This record gives sequence, C-alpha cells and structure tokens, in this order.
Amino acid sequence: MDQSVPDTPSGPASSPSSDTAVTLHVCVTCLAGEDRETMPRAGRRLHDGLVAALRRQADPPGFRIVEAECLSNCDRGCSAALSGPGRWSYVYGDLSEASVDDLLAGATRYAATADGLVPWRERPLIFRKGVIARIPPSIQERVT
Amino acid sequence: MDQSVPDTPSGPASSPSSDTAVTLHVCVTCLAGEDRETMPRAGRRLHDGLVAALRRQADPPGFRIVEAECLSNCDRGCSAALSGPGRWSYVYGDLSEASVDDLLAGATRYAATADGLVPWRERPLIFRKGVIARIPPSIQERVT
Repeated sequence: MDQSVPDTPSGPASSPSSDTAVTLHVCVTCLAGEDRETMPRAGRRLHDGLVAALRRQADPPGFRIVEAECLSNCDRGCSAALSGPGRWSYVYGDLSEASVDDLLAGATRYAATADGLVPWRERPLIFRKGVIARIPPSIQERVT
Repeated sequence: MDQSVPDTPSGPASSPSSDTAVTLHVCVTCLAGEDRETMPRAGRRLHDGLVAALRRQADPPGFRIVEAECLSNCDRGCSAALSGPGRWSYVYGDLSEASVDDLLAGATRYAATADGLVPWRERPLIFRKGVIARIPPSIQERVT
C-alpha cells in the first residue's frame, strides 16, 4: 500500500549513459514476501542487478533505470514499470533477480517502438505472464 | 489479456467541454465476469454512466474521459486509469456502475493536484481499496 512510504520517487537515473525518454522504473522498496528486516530488500537487489547488467552491455541502452518507491503492486512484487512519451505504460509484477536479463531485453524492445506496443510474440515470458496493468498515452502525446 | 483486443485506444474524448491534460481512461471492453455476449459490456456501461454523470455537473470537469480497450487488469475489472503530464498515473480495478460518483470525485481531486498525489484520507474508498498499480511521472515531466 502506497500510504506507508514516501510518495516521491528517489534516486538518480541509474544509467547515466542513457539520455532517452524511456524509463524503466524499479520499485526498490519491494519486500516480495521477505522479512521487513532483510537488507538489501528484494526490490533493491533487482534494481542493482539491472544496473550492473546494463553496465556490462557494450551498446548504450535505449532507456534509463530509475528507482521508485512503491508502485502499489505489493501483492505481486517485485515490480517494475515502463513508460515514455507517446507510449503505452506497462506495470509488471512477479519479478526477481532472475528476471534481470529478460527485463532488459523487454525494455530494449519497448524502447525501440514508437508507441510502447511490442508484438505479443516478441515479449519476454515475464512480460506476458507478469503484466499487472497498462495505461494508454495521453492523446496529445500519441504517435499517429 | 491484451493480446486479444486491438492495441489502439478508440473513441473521442467523451467530455468535449474539457480541454485539460488530465485523462480518466475507462476500459470499455471489460466483462467484469459477465458473459461475453452481454451487451453493453460492463466496462461500456461504466463509461457511459460516467459521461452521463459528468454532463449533469454544473461545473466543467478538470479532466476528460477517454475510452480504452483493455488496461490488462481483466481479473479485477472494471478498470480505469488516471494520468496527466507531470503526474503519477494510477490504475484502479473492482469498479462498476455503482462507482460512478466516487470515481468522478476522485478524478476531480486528482486533477486538482500538480503531481497526481491525492492525500490518502482524501481518496475515495474505491481508490484506496481498488488501486492496482501506479507509475511515476517521467523525470522531465515531474513537477518540483
């Protein structure tokens, strides 16, 4: 529940080499069923694993990774979201450190689209199974 | 599941008197557990109820209502989402025609904020109980 944590996302973009508009938001406060005292938290481990994997990539990413505090999907955390101007936004759940490679691949495909709509068969399994919700772009942002 | 329906949102803004940037997206394809042959669908009835209620209001709304086809929250439909530039976006589920008044009140409060963050106690119960997920604004959009 998002009333228990600060409402303002924190942390700098974790991919300083990327200056694109597409963002992969990663909830760093997610417990994912673990004890509240477990540190680092599951969401933080997912975030840090993504950043480390991104740094190992030779090509610059088409998106940036940004820390978020609660995406209000606590029952199915860890959680991440993809958004960008003119694009559908997506929230994904049931993620873990094992999702790092698929999450980066999915974000790369998302960033390569103009509207955020990756063909179903090209979506990683974690995106097909773990989609929590999606939101259309604003009409004035929409790519036609 | 969003693979079964067109990916492009349809329909004009249903509140032509409003030209603001805040949008209440309403899934008009939601079945909400009803038979697929039931017409109009539960999501369509919710949308039309919202539009009719909005037209009865004396004051112009601070948001527009836009039809969406699938917000990928089929297990907990009917579904709606609130979004606007510089604001957190929210997806809500477990909605029905009985939610019309609360949904309009919540959307009005959301539109009155700069960042989409309505204080917890001012949120309608359907927003507190039915939040499915939320997505931070893009950094470049964020109001500081």
